Amino acid sequence: MAKSIKIRVPGTSANCGPGFDCLGVSCTIYNDIELTLLKEQELKIYVEGEGAENIPTDERNLAWRSIRTLLGRVGAEGEYRGAIIRMQNGVPLSRGLGSSAAAIVGALKAANVLLGNPLDRRGLLQVATDLEGHPDNVAPAIYGGFTVSLVADGVPESFSFLPRLSLKLVVAVPDFHLSTKEARNALPSEVPMKDAVFNIGRAALLVGALAKGNASFLRNAFDDALHQPYRSKLIPGMYDVFAAAKKAGALGVAMSGAGPCIIAYTAERATEIGEAMVGAFREHGVGARFLALGVDRRGAHIVKD
Amino acid sequence: MAKSIKIRVPGTSANCGPGFDCLGVSCTIYNDIELTLLKEQELKIYVEGEGAENIPTDERNLAWRSIRTLLGRVGAEGEYRGAIIRMQNGVPLSRGLGSSAAAIVGALKAANVLLGNPLDRRGLLQVATDLEGHPDNVAPAIYGGFTVSLVADGVPESFSFLPRLSLKLVVAVPDFHLSTKEARNALPSEVPMKDAVFNIGRAALLVGALAKGNASFLRNAFDDALHQPYRSKLIPGMYDVFAAAKKAGALGVAMSGAGPCIIAYTAERATEIGEAMVGAFREHGVGARFLALGVDRRGAHIVKD
Repeated sequence: MAKSIKIRVPGTSANCGPGFDCLGVSCTIYNDIELTLLKEQELKIYVEGEGAENIPTDERNLAWRSIRTLLGRVGAEGEYRGAIIRMQNGVPLSRGLGSSAAAIVGALKAANVLLGNPLDRRGLLQVATDLEGHPDNVAPAIYGGFTVSLVADGVPESFSFLPRLSLKLVVAVPDFHLSTKEARNALPSEVPMKDAVFNIGRAALLVGALAKGNASFLRNAFDDALHQPYRSKLIPGMYDVFAAAKKAGALGVAMSGAGPCIIAYTAERATEIGEAMVGAFREHGVGARFLALGVDRRGAHIVKD
Repeated sequence: MAKSIKIRVPGTSANCGPGFDCLGVSCTIYNDIELTLLKEQELKIYVEGEGAENIPTDERNLAWRSIRTLLGRVGAEGEYRGAIIRMQNGVPLSRGLGSSAAAIVGALKAANVLLGNPLDRRGLLQVATDLEGHPDNVAPAIYGGFTVSLVADGVPESFSFLPRLSLKLVVAVPDFHLSTKEARNALPSEVPMKDAVFNIGRAALLVGALAKGNASFLRNAFDDALHQPYRSKLIPGMYDVFAAAKKAGALGVAMSGAGPCIIAYTAERATEIGEAMVGAFREHGVGARFLALGVDRRGAHIVKD
């Protein structure tokens, strides 16, 4: 009889302000994926929760394509040709919370476990990065905590760590989607050296202050000069939402990934901050809700029912 | 009778590879400065050691100018109008090991102690940054260890931490000087976005791996795309020296500050690495010596004889 496994995988927020294209954090919001690998060529996909109406349930499904890629990499594509996949999604779709990374990592982890773990986490990182195109979201989805990722000679490398301080993540989720491609196209190919230096110092400070637990150094550490100024036009009222969150007590505020979600980092008063962000969006005619989350510490893991 | 104080202040290496204009490290090589503040308008300056023949011993002396600035900031310029300064310099001059930062910080610290510590270390950082123009070297000279520095709204901020792993610093000191201005002029005002991202990821990784003590992540963490490629033409054979150090076992190699010193970071085999670097310089017709140093953990401090 075919074996099943259920994996819980976190949503993630990339960039974290100055860490453009390298930092990421794992959030306490999850997708569950239950996988049964089949020897016969049969595919059944059931999706519930966030974005269910927009997720294809045929060969185009991202989780299934990820599973097929992994089967190919470990030489098991002849053994398993079908699957039953049940997805229960808590991560909002196409909003900057790593929904595609969650689908990829959840599916890869599930298939890898069912196959007896032929890949370790670095191996999963490589396959997931190949599928997603960059490691920024898949790395925190795999490892949990904060991650610093880079790709050297085609090989992704991710350093993960848990912050040594209590940090809440308040995510304002506006009622519109933003394609990563559109957000990417808003960026210039050249930037002022001084803006590069701005981000290098703040990204290094952010990682140092989080890793050592020095909250007093976080006040300037979430600022960015490299991508948010160019993308702000895609999110009505973005800087007003930033200001509202800071005024309500946030340590720092940033676009989540390529947006449109905006994430505030705080030690306290998460609800007040969330309400202030939603209010600021409303003044710009944008409907929004907020999620008060924490830092997920585990990354993708098996769920025993 | 006038009181004297003796301060020991470390040499420093800025940039540390990817941390252009923000990272710095304090090295176990020192200048000593002995200061007596005088009520009368009299100035006696004695310099021994590195660069003694090139350091002015009159009103132009950098240590004395730093002392005058501090006296002015704390409102003591009327009380003390002269000084006796004895400098014993171990830090090579104008080679990228923070000799001017050492002079500034040593002098400021000495005067501050004699005045009863009117400034704390953040206050010293502000004055030292104003004098030096940037905090990259003065910060590690004040705090010791590694520092991440930035300036926000004119106020310098430096986060300091000790690496949680054993790290040796092997510095190749070539027989020529390089002015910071010349090195600065070699840089473009705009850089490719991908190069900025390259450095952000590596600087963040470097700080994270050092702070948490994960040596296995340091292999790519010292690489830089933002300043060294443009400055390499000023240092004959630079990349060959890099390659020689890596081949001899270094974890990473970088220009020290704006050069011409080159610094290798390693856990072991410091002597072999130093000899390899000197040998590579020699093949390019450049005479050089090397210093096998450690990470200074204290920053500027009082010496009791």
